[in-house]
Amino acid sequence: MQPLSGFRDFLPASCAERNYIFAKWREVAGRYGFVEFDGPVLEELDLYKKKSGDEIVRQLYEFVDKGERAVALRPEMTPTLARIVAAEHRQFRKPLKWFAIPQVFRYERPQRGRLREHFQLNCDIIGEESPEADAELIALVIDVVRAFGFTSKDFVVRISDREFWMELLKLEKVPSNRWEEMLQTIDKSEREPREKTQERLGKLAKPVFEIFEKGGESAKLTNIIENLRLRGLADFAKVDVRIVRGLAYYTGIVFEVFDRAGKFRAIAGGGRYDQLVAQLSDNAVSMPALGFAIGDVVLGEMIRGHAAARAQMEKTIGAERAVEIYVVIAKEEQRGNAVAMMQQLRDCGYRVDYSLAAAKVARQFRLAEQSRARFAVVFGDEWPQVGVKDLETGQQVLVAHDDVLRHVAEAPSRA
Amino acid sequence: MQPLSGFRDFLPASCAERNYIFAKWREVAGRYGFVEFDGPVLEELDLYKKKSGDEIVRQLYEFVDKGERAVALRPEMTPTLARIVAAEHRQFRKPLKWFAIPQVFRYERPQRGRLREHFQLNCDIIGEESPEADAELIALVIDVVRAFGFTSKDFVVRISDREFWMELLKLEKVPSNRWEEMLQTIDKSEREPREKTQERLGKLAKPVFEIFEKGGESAKLTNIIENLRLRGLADFAKVDVRIVRGLAYYTGIVFEVFDRAGKFRAIAGGGRYDQLVAQLSDNAVSMPALGFAIGDVVLGEMIRGHAAARAQMEKTIGAERAVEIYVVIAKEEQRGNAVAMMQQLRDCGYRVDYSLAAAKVARQFRLAEQSRARFAVVFGDEWPQVGVKDLETGQQVLVAHDDVLRHVAEAPSRA
Repeated sequence: MQPLSGFRDFLPASCAERNYIFAKWREVAGRYGFVEFDGPVLEELDLYKKKSGDEIVRQLYEFVDKGERAVALRPEMTPTLARIVAAEHRQFRKPLKWFAIPQVFRYERPQRGRLREHFQLNCDIIGEESPEADAELIALVIDVVRAFGFTSKDFVVRISDREFWMELLKLEKVPSNRWEEMLQTIDKSEREPREKTQERLGKLAKPVFEIFEKGGESAKLTNIIENLRLRGLADFAKVDVRIVRGLAYYTGIVFEVFDRAGKFRAIAGGGRYDQLVAQLSDNAVSMPALGFAIGDVVLGEMIRGHAAARAQMEKTIGAERAVEIYVVIAKEEQRGNAVAMMQQLRDCGYRVDYSLAAAKVARQFRLAEQSRARFAVVFGDEWPQVGVKDLETGQQVLVAHDDVLRHVAEAPSRA
Repeated sequence: MQPLSGFRDFLPASCAERNYIFAKWREVAGRYGFVEFDGPVLEELDLYKKKSGDEIVRQLYEFVDKGERAVALRPEMTPTLARIVAAEHRQFRKPLKWFAIPQVFRYERPQRGRLREHFQLNCDIIGEESPEADAELIALVIDVVRAFGFTSKDFVVRISDREFWMELLKLEKVPSNRWEEMLQTIDKSEREPREKTQERLGKLAKPVFEIFEKGGESAKLTNIIENLRLRGLADFAKVDVRIVRGLAYYTGIVFEVFDRAGKFRAIAGGGRYDQLVAQLSDNAVSMPALGFAIGDVVLGEMIRGHAAARAQMEKTIGAERAVEIYVVIAKEEQRGNAVAMMQQLRDCGYRVDYSLAAAKVARQFRLAEQSRARFAVVFGDEWPQVGVKDLETGQQVLVAHDDVLRHVAEAPSRA
C-alpha cells in the first residue's frame, strides 16, 4: 500500500528537516513578537468561495461530509484567521501579531512534483493600518528566509501596491466589475506571452506596458523601501509593480519572495487585505489586516541546494537527534542494574538508548556508535563498578555505579 | 461564521498549552531514543477497514474524493506506521523506535464535549519481540505522564495480556471466529451491566467472572511489573486483566493509563500488534510491533485540574512567550533609529516588539508591561543616547545607543 497521490510520508530524516524548518519559523516569528494560533484543518466550503481567488477555489479539496455539509480541507489559513478575529477580537489589544504553521491542501490533476498538501508559515498583523506594519511584515519575511543561511545574493522581495493599479483603472475608467480580471491579467503577465496579455488588457494594454517598461512607483512604496533601508535590509527588497498576487482579497501593498537565480516558483508571498474581516463578518467587524505565507516545499528544495544552508541544517539536526548515552549490557544478569541506571539518567534529561534484547558486546558498541552516543556505560563483571567509555576520545574508565551521573555531567561538552 | 462542529480553534493561549504538551511529548520520547516521523492526514479507506476495531471503523471520517477514491481522515496512526514500515523497513536497523504527533479524526453524532479531532502522541517499537520492549514502552508512557508533574498518586497503568484470554478461549473451545467478539465483550465489561456481559459471554461467563474476582496473572505480566520495579516505576503500574483494548489488531500485552480519581476516560492506551505489518503487506513483511497513543484532550483537562501540573505549564508558557525588549519611540523623528536598533537586537535573537503607529509614551510603556518585556529601550531627545529601563526593578539609565546590546546582554538574568 502507498500513500495517496500527492501526499507525503515523513520518514525520520525528512521529518527532522521539516521540524528544523518549523523551529526556525517559530523562532524568527517570536523575535518579532508574534504569537502562535491554529484552526481546524477542515472548514465550511463557504468560507473560501468568492473570498479567495478563482484559482484557489477551483483547486479546493472539497467534499460533502456524512452530515451533508459542504466542507473543504483548508487551502490557506487567512480565511480561518479572519473568521476567528471577527468573532474573538474583543479579548485582544490591537494590533494582533499572530502566526500559524498549518498544513494546507489543494486538489489538482496529479502532475509530477505537484503535491496536494504542504505546510506554511503564516504571519499576520491585524488591526493596524500604519504603513509601518507593511514594513515590519516584509522585514519579518526577509528575516525568516535569512534564518536558514541565505543572503541578499540568494533572494529578493519584490514589493508592489494594488492601489497603484486601482488608481490607473479608475483613471482609465475601467468598470469596477472588471478590476479583478485586469489585476489577474497583470499578475499573470510574466508567465504568459505578451500578445495574450495585450489581448486581455484591451485598451489598458498601452498604459500597462508603459509602466512595465519604465517601472512604476509610489510614495508609499518608496517609504517602505526607506524603512527597510533603516533596518539594513534594503539589499533584500525592490519595488516591482508587476507583482499583483492571485488572491482576490488583497487591497494594498503586496509582495513576493523569489530566489535570485530564478530556479523556483515564488518562495513566499503576502500583502494587505483590509476588507476580508469585514466580508466574513457581514460588516459587523471591520479591521485592517496584512499577512504572508511561506511554504515548506520550495524552501526545503532551496536549503538542500545551497551548501551553507544545507550544512547549517544538517549540523542542527545532528546535534538534536543524537542519543547521549548508550547503555551496554555485557552480562545479562546486569540488565536489572542497567535499566535502573537508565531511568536515573533519563530522569535527569539525558537521551539514553540500549539493546532491548540480549546481544553480543561488540554489536552493542556498534549500535552505540551508530546512534552517535557520546558515552557508553557498560554493565559487566565489575559491578558495582561500571565502565564509562567516551566514544569521541575512546577513553574508558571504571567508576562506582553511583558516580556515573556525576561523571557524565562533569565531562567537557561536545566539540 | 463558526468552526465546524467538533473542531477546535486554537487561540494563542490554548495554542501555547497545546505546544507545551507537544514539547514535553517530544522531549520524553527523545530521552528514550525515539525519533519522529509523520504520514498523511488522509489515507485510503482500505487501510483502516477490517484492520482496526469495529468501533473505530464505524466512526471513520470517510468520503469519496474528486478522483472517486474512497478515503478517510486518519482515525489513528498505527495503520500508517505499519504501511510505511512494510515498505521502507530495509533502510533501518531494527528495532525502530519511532514517535509521531498526528491529529486524528472521527465522525460521530455530535455530543457535548465530543470532538471530531484531537492530537495524539504515538510511540511505537517495531521489530522487537523481547518482553523488554513491552516494559520499555510502558516505562515511556509512565514518564510521558510524569513529565507534566503527575505522580503515582495521580495515575496508574493497568497492564493486561490478550494471550492470557486467548489461552482461556482455546481451553474453553470457543471457535476462533468468535474470539474478537468475546474479547470486545470483556473489554466493555467495566462499562456495561453485569447481566449484559453475562448474556454475551454465554458459557464463558463463569470462568471470566471468576478471573475478574480473583484477578488473573501470568509469568509474562509478572516479569513486566518486575522490570518496572527495577526502574523505580512499580507504583505507577498494576496487572489488571480486564483491560483488553478496542482495536482488533492487538495480539499480546495491552495497557491503559487512568487517573486514580476516576474522573476521566483512559488517558492513554496501547499494546502489541505483532501481525499488523504482515497483514498490511500481504505477508511480504512480518515484524513484531507494539505502541501506545496518548491524546491531548484528556491530558489537557487533567493538567488544568491539577494545581502543580497547571503551575508548571503556566510558568513554562510564560517564560517562552514573553517579549524581552520593548522599544519605546518617545519622539517620532527617532523611529528610524529605533527600527535600526530593533533589527540588531532581533538579529542577536532577542524577542523585540514596539508600537507600529505613533502613540503616547505612557501608552507605549503600558504596552511594554503588558507584553511582559524585561527591558524598555526609549528613543527620545537624548539621542545618540537612549534610555534603558529594567521593567522588573524600575531602574532606568541612559546609555550610548551603540552600548545597548552590551548593556542588555550583561544584565543579570530574570528571576
